[in-house]
Amino acid sequence: PRKNDGPLYESAVGDIVQRSREELKAIRETNPGLKPTLAIIQAGEDDNLLEVNKKMARKIGLNVMQICLPDQCTEEEVIEEILRLNEDSLVHGIFLHLSQSFLSRSVCNAIKPQKDVDGVSDLNVGRVLLGDQRDGFASPVAGAVLELLARHDAPLVGKMAVLVGVKGPLKVTLQFLLQNNGMIVQTCQWSSKHLQKQIMDSDVVVLLDTGHKGLPPTWLRPGVAVINLGSALMEEHCDSWEPRMEAKSDAGVGPLSAALRMQHVVRSSRRWLEEQEYQSWSLR
Amino acid sequence: PRKNDGPLYESAVGDIVQRSREELKAIRETNPGLKPTLAIIQAGEDDNLLEVNKKMARKIGLNVMQICLPDQCTEEEVIEEILRLNEDSLVHGIFLHLSQSFLSRSVCNAIKPQKDVDGVSDLNVGRVLLGDQRDGFASPVAGAVLELLARHDAPLVGKMAVLVGVKGPLKVTLQFLLQNNGMIVQTCQWSSKHLQKQIMDSDVVVLLDTGHKGLPPTWLRPGVAVINLGSALMEEHCDSWEPRMEAKSDAGVGPLSAALRMQHVVRSSRRWLEEQEYQSWSLR
Ligand SMILES: NC(=O)C1=CN([C@@H]2O[C@H](COP(=O)(O)OP(=O)(O)OC[C@H]3O[C@@H](n4cnc5c(N)ncnc54)[C@H](OP(=O)(O)O)[C@@H]3O)[C@@H](O)[C@H]2O)C=CC1
Ligand SMILES: NC(=O)C1=CN([C@@H]2O[C@H](COP(=O)(O)OP(=O)(O)OC[C@H]3O[C@@H](n4cnc5c(N)ncnc54)[C@H](OP(=O)(O)O)[C@@H]3O)[C@@H](O)[C@H]2O)C=CC1
Repeated sequence: PRKNDGPLYESAVGDIVQRSREELKAIRETNPGLKPTLAIIQAGEDDNLLEVNKKMARKIGLNVMQICLPDQCTEEEVIEEILRLNEDSLVHGIFLHLSQSFLSRSVCNAIKPQKDVDGVSDLNVGRVLLGDQRDGFASPVAGAVLELLARHDAPLVGKMAVLVGVKGPLKVTLQFLLQNNGMIVQTCQWSSKHLQKQIMDSDVVVLLDTGHKGLPPTWLRPGVAVINLGSALMEEHCDSWEPRMEAKSDAGVGPLSAALRMQHVVRSSRRWLEEQEYQSWSLR
Repeated sequence: PRKNDGPLYESAVGDIVQRSREELKAIRETNPGLKPTLAIIQAGEDDNLLEVNKKMARKIGLNVMQICLPDQCTEEEVIEEILRLNEDSLVHGIFLHLSQSFLSRSVCNAIKPQKDVDGVSDLNVGRVLLGDQRDGFASPVAGAVLELLARHDAPLVGKMAVLVGVKGPLKVTLQFLLQNNGMIVQTCQWSSKHLQKQIMDSDVVVLLDTGHKGLPPTWLRPGVAVINLGSALMEEHCDSWEPRMEAKSDAGVGPLSAALRMQHVVRSSRRWLEEQEYQSWSLR
């Protein structure tokens, strides 16, 4: 691991943006009328992470449609919006920018798998874990962690990783991707009595920091990579504990996951086109 | 771990059979016409494992329908049978008793999730990993391994397990269930150069033995639990290496997984009934 990951993650973002631009250009050449679109459902104002996503969409050439619900909206209202977007043929991807408390299994599974560019539905997670990875959309945040680790110098095989406070589709997908790269992965909650031991045993610590306390620096092995997912998932980004970290590798996880999300939207629109073509052929 | 697991696994099988009989009896009391049925697609003759499954169905009171395809059948023929059984309202579960080479992702995903009592489809695996475990059917073979381990004396938290030569939905589900019980799980192929080290580090070794070589006894820690899944998955059960094992815990995995499979058929038929009732209510 290196102290400064700026250039590393920036080149990863650059690569993904470049590839997606070209893919989109090829699609637009044969289908000039098509405007691939990401729909974002949010509660409340734009935040930092939303700005990063919108900037990434602009860079690649994607449209963004924002559905802003009031802060006090209900689960039913969110599902209603999702069902409407499922039927909207202009929309090729749906991103729920909502707090964890809204992301119940019913909400996540309401998204049509073809438009689930964040990989939060049961079917998508099953596809990613069992199929070819092109079959389903893997959580972009999990993908971003892998991209970051892959660009470090040290090989991952046989290394220990721990996921602290990570839950749901992100936890399952991340655990799978890390294990698939030969790592031994443990998970734990912030309240676990094994937390200190598991962190001290780990070469890679991935954490979702719901509080603002941070990890005591004495818990971290020299050279450990610490990746805080907060900047890729949450409204408030608490970087108050940054100076205490020995090796902070999470600078890029927000922009990287945004870039991967947009790549999924481009792929989704290409698949949609292929399906349309297949259907018009089979109708002849 | 104990040398003789006979009584242990037999009581687990007995508990599941007892519970399923009662559940089925309750269903039949309100729906005397219903005959919950497991359909088995097989290529070739009945083998040992099939006999175990049929006996378990009889004990619980389930019907069994066998579809016997020729040994040389194609993937398309298997899928055709599955699609027919998906539409057959008499069938509440589908079990593919076929060699691994037939169990491609397209074959597994052809099964309607509601009838996928073996938990081989992408959606079912996603549901098991993300939802309440009642949402989806977890692989009965994975469930059987957990039942066996849970009945040993030693707690599982913090223990090391390795899955050797296990693949697909079974691997993913088993890895998840073991990790969910606090174990640290590694997986490897028989050809892996890390095989010996991983086995020597493990408290639990779960293996699918495609060859007939067995593990050198010197590789096994004292007190290790070794579970061979062959008897739950394959036609030929190679117990030639049994005497060489220090602690063999796999005696029950065949009958236990059969019992769990039948429990899933009973649950599937109950869910189907609930759905019928819901539909007839909503039609009024
Ligand atoms: N060092 C740090 O940065 C942090 C330290 N802590 C400390 O750890 C202790 C316990 O923390 P606390 O958070 O209460 O305990 P837990 O981490 O056990 O979580 C408690 C509750 O929050 C839920 N939860 C945990 N992680 C997430 C997540 N990523 N997204 C959504 N919900 C989640 C849990 O759900 P379920 O039980 O269903 O899994 C549980 O209901 C406290 O002393 C606290 O101060 C807490 C957070 C951050
Ligand atoms: N001790 C024992 O009991 C055994 C020892 N061996 C020994 O290990 C060495 C390599 O064995 P070999 O089996 O060829 O190597 P692998 O275990 O690497 O498997 C080789 C091929 O079989 C596939 N495969 C592996 N496991 C399964 C499974 N559970 N179901 C279906 N297909 C599977 C692999 O698929 P993919 O690459 O796609 O994962 C690969 O295509 C040989 O020396 C062999 O003798 C092999 C088997 C049992």
